[in-house]
Amino acid sequence: MSVTEPQTTSSEAARRHLLSPAEDMAKLGSAARPLLRHAEGIHLFDADGRALIDGPGGMWCSQIGYGRQEMADAIASQVMALPYNSPWHSINGPAAELARRIATLTPGDLDHIFFTTGGSTAVDSALRFVQYFNNVLERPAKKKILVRYRSYHGSTELAASCSPRPQASPFDTADPKIVVLSSPDARDRPAGMSEEEHGLALAAEFERVIAREGAETLGAFIAEPVQASGGVIVPPANYFALMRAICAQHDILFIADEVVTGFGRLGHWFASEAVMGIVPDLIVFAKGVTSGYVPMGGFAISDRILARVSGEHAKGRYFSNGYTYSGHPVAAAAALANIAIFEREEILAHVRAVAPHFQAGLRALRRYRLVTDVRGAGLVGCVECAGDDDAMKQAIGARVDRHCQELGLVVRPIVNNCVLSPPLIIKRAEIDQMMDILAKAIELTEADLMAEDLWPKSI
Amino acid sequence: MSVTEPQTTSSEAARRHLLSPAEDMAKLGSAARPLLRHAEGIHLFDADGRALIDGPGGMWCSQIGYGRQEMADAIASQVMALPYNSPWHSINGPAAELARRIATLTPGDLDHIFFTTGGSTAVDSALRFVQYFNNVLERPAKKKILVRYRSYHGSTELAASCSPRPQASPFDTADPKIVVLSSPDARDRPAGMSEEEHGLALAAEFERVIAREGAETLGAFIAEPVQASGGVIVPPANYFALMRAICAQHDILFIADEVVTGFGRLGHWFASEAVMGIVPDLIVFAKGVTSGYVPMGGFAISDRILARVSGEHAKGRYFSNGYTYSGHPVAAAAALANIAIFEREEILAHVRAVAPHFQAGLRALRRYRLVTDVRGAGLVGCVECAGDDDAMKQAIGARVDRHCQELGLVVRPIVNNCVLSPPLIIKRAEIDQMMDILAKAIELTEADLMAEDLWPKSI
Repeated sequence: MSVTEPQTTSSEAARRHLLSPAEDMAKLGSAARPLLRHAEGIHLFDADGRALIDGPGGMWCSQIGYGRQEMADAIASQVMALPYNSPWHSINGPAAELARRIATLTPGDLDHIFFTTGGSTAVDSALRFVQYFNNVLERPAKKKILVRYRSYHGSTELAASCSPRPQASPFDTADPKIVVLSSPDARDRPAGMSEEEHGLALAAEFERVIAREGAETLGAFIAEPVQASGGVIVPPANYFALMRAICAQHDILFIADEVVTGFGRLGHWFASEAVMGIVPDLIVFAKGVTSGYVPMGGFAISDRILARVSGEHAKGRYFSNGYTYSGHPVAAAAALANIAIFEREEILAHVRAVAPHFQAGLRALRRYRLVTDVRGAGLVGCVECAGDDDAMKQAIGARVDRHCQELGLVVRPIVNNCVLSPPLIIKRAEIDQMMDILAKAIELTEADLMAEDLWPKSI
Repeated sequence: MSVTEPQTTSSEAARRHLLSPAEDMAKLGSAARPLLRHAEGIHLFDADGRALIDGPGGMWCSQIGYGRQEMADAIASQVMALPYNSPWHSINGPAAELARRIATLTPGDLDHIFFTTGGSTAVDSALRFVQYFNNVLERPAKKKILVRYRSYHGSTELAASCSPRPQASPFDTADPKIVVLSSPDARDRPAGMSEEEHGLALAAEFERVIAREGAETLGAFIAEPVQASGGVIVPPANYFALMRAICAQHDILFIADEVVTGFGRLGHWFASEAVMGIVPDLIVFAKGVTSGYVPMGGFAISDRILARVSGEHAKGRYFSNGYTYSGHPVAAAAALANIAIFEREEILAHVRAVAPHFQAGLRALRRYRLVTDVRGAGLVGCVECAGDDDAMKQAIGARVDRHCQELGLVVRPIVNNCVLSPPLIIKRAEIDQMMDILAKAIELTEADLMAEDLWPKSI
């Protein structure tokens, strides 16, 4: 590009120079996504300065909301003290303090923390730990990774390979070592089967797969407590305890991917024990750890698991994995300030207090014929709309989205799934406002579909 | 961990709770790396408040040095305006402006930018682009990645798999699709062969490998202009032009990994064209783009390459890859402020002015018998010390390091390779000071070895 090119707007710069995540390649260069310049509290402000409720909460991450002076101060102060140190040769105070702090928040003995740059790298590193673990234990065949359909674990090749989903992908998968289990999705539950029977059936499938593959080939099971990007899928109540017990029986590491559920989304620091009733071997986190203010992710790991592959068992062994920005001091300072805000404002208690109201509001939307399913937990929920085929589902989701946007709510549906994952500081009245807008948008969409004679045949 | 555990120091917290990159697992929990609390200019300050020159420049990243108020201001200001936006649904001004700005700095038509969280994710995404590219072009077999021995491309499974190095790894490689070429290492050049002949021999090897594997199976060649972590290996002058031409002939994408060389290390924004004389198809960057102040990486890609797999060629195709923190507004604001400092302080011209002095200072260390090789380019260099075996090399490197540390310079050798990659703002007198310390440390180490009767037999 010529350096004398005239200055243009940021939107024009994006259209000409930005390749964005999930870019629609057929339209590259012909349009740019909407430009955001300002956000405050639970609101994003559009180009005209109009406030919109941030329904997705950034990308399931904006727990404490926007515009926090305390975050700016903590970040700027760390930038001046020490903006970077090499984690290969040194440590910094904030990363060390954050590791200790997170160890107090995790269940069981998950008291060691490895830091990365986000959720994808945290998953990638956790799965590389599984390789390290079984190589050191001289079980090199015990490496296959058990994943569930509809999961999303990230976008490195390895993390993406653990994310089998309905959508076709133009990418390759990393590894023949991925073994796919069913999603614990109530929509797949046969008629007449209870939720408890569904959990038992999923556990029985797991045992059949272990018998087929051989436990000696299976290194880890990775699971989101709630399958988030897959469409906010909440498993049967007995599911995780059953899966955890089977993993323990076969020495298969249980990795809870709490990138979405961690840091308050379900009303607790982590959902594994408090909501799902289990203690995993590893917990992966990101997003909420800094409320998205500075990129950071990581995993917490059980001391008992580490003890099997460290100390006397690990002479000459290095965990030769890590990132230039592992334990970045500015990210760690942001995380500590974020956790301090959680505590001072009692955000976890707030989430537990308002979550029933939020979930009831979502359930009430079942009154609309267009709504085919409602699901959720804590402050995350999903309203699924009808549609006879994928194109129609996409079009209906887009229509609801447009009406919401006009009425003051950002939704950005995953196809026909309107996911709400607002900042955790959202007030009861704001939840009502969000539900009112969504209801109105659904009504308007229903009216559109009738007027245009496009009403789905399937409802 | 019990929440009532008493407060202890940060070092104690790190020892008990931090799993660090490249952790020596035999020693986990028994020691912590040194704690850094403060840095300013080119200096790190140790626990006693003593200033040490930062020889590695953080981790090849601290281009503008530490303690920059302008960086703190730009970062804090962006935190208050918009600390996060979802790049799936929106864009932010700083990321759009940064994409435009970087497009002016890259050679040729590398005018689209994809942002990630660091170098590893940038490499991973660039290699996933190769998959996208050849899948869309309906050449699904054309995916193998050509890498060079002694390379380092990062720590996701895929990036690490592209980093074949002498050290044994406790991890698995991702993919049978990695093809390894020789390092363009002058130390491997047969006696009597000129540098030019060495370049030709490496190119001939490349052509033999293509004939063996079939060009129809080879998707990309990825290379650092200078193999940094591999030991600062500078290739023959004719090497990259030859390799580039061969790639072009066989439609093999040429990916320059400029994570270390980008943003000024060799005196230019990027080294590919200015130093190596070639225009790659993709350039991967990280580190220097923000001088390490906030995690960020990305790649620049040729519009001509993108045009083959976008627009009319790509109906219904999505580049379904990306990170929650792609184009993070705070990281992008830090990068823009960093670039502004580069320009105002004319840092590139400064690097070009002092680099010959720096390289001459390194070369002068050849006067010591312990020094077996000196190499470098721009403001990166390596002094290799002798040693009869790996353990001795490690011990000698550690000894030089300790003496340097005592004399006021952080080195942190890669085994017996003392790498210097200081902040780019280093002054001529400070370069002299660094060289004096290194010389003195080598002298002291030589004296130690003689006194202890441990002088290497091989020199």
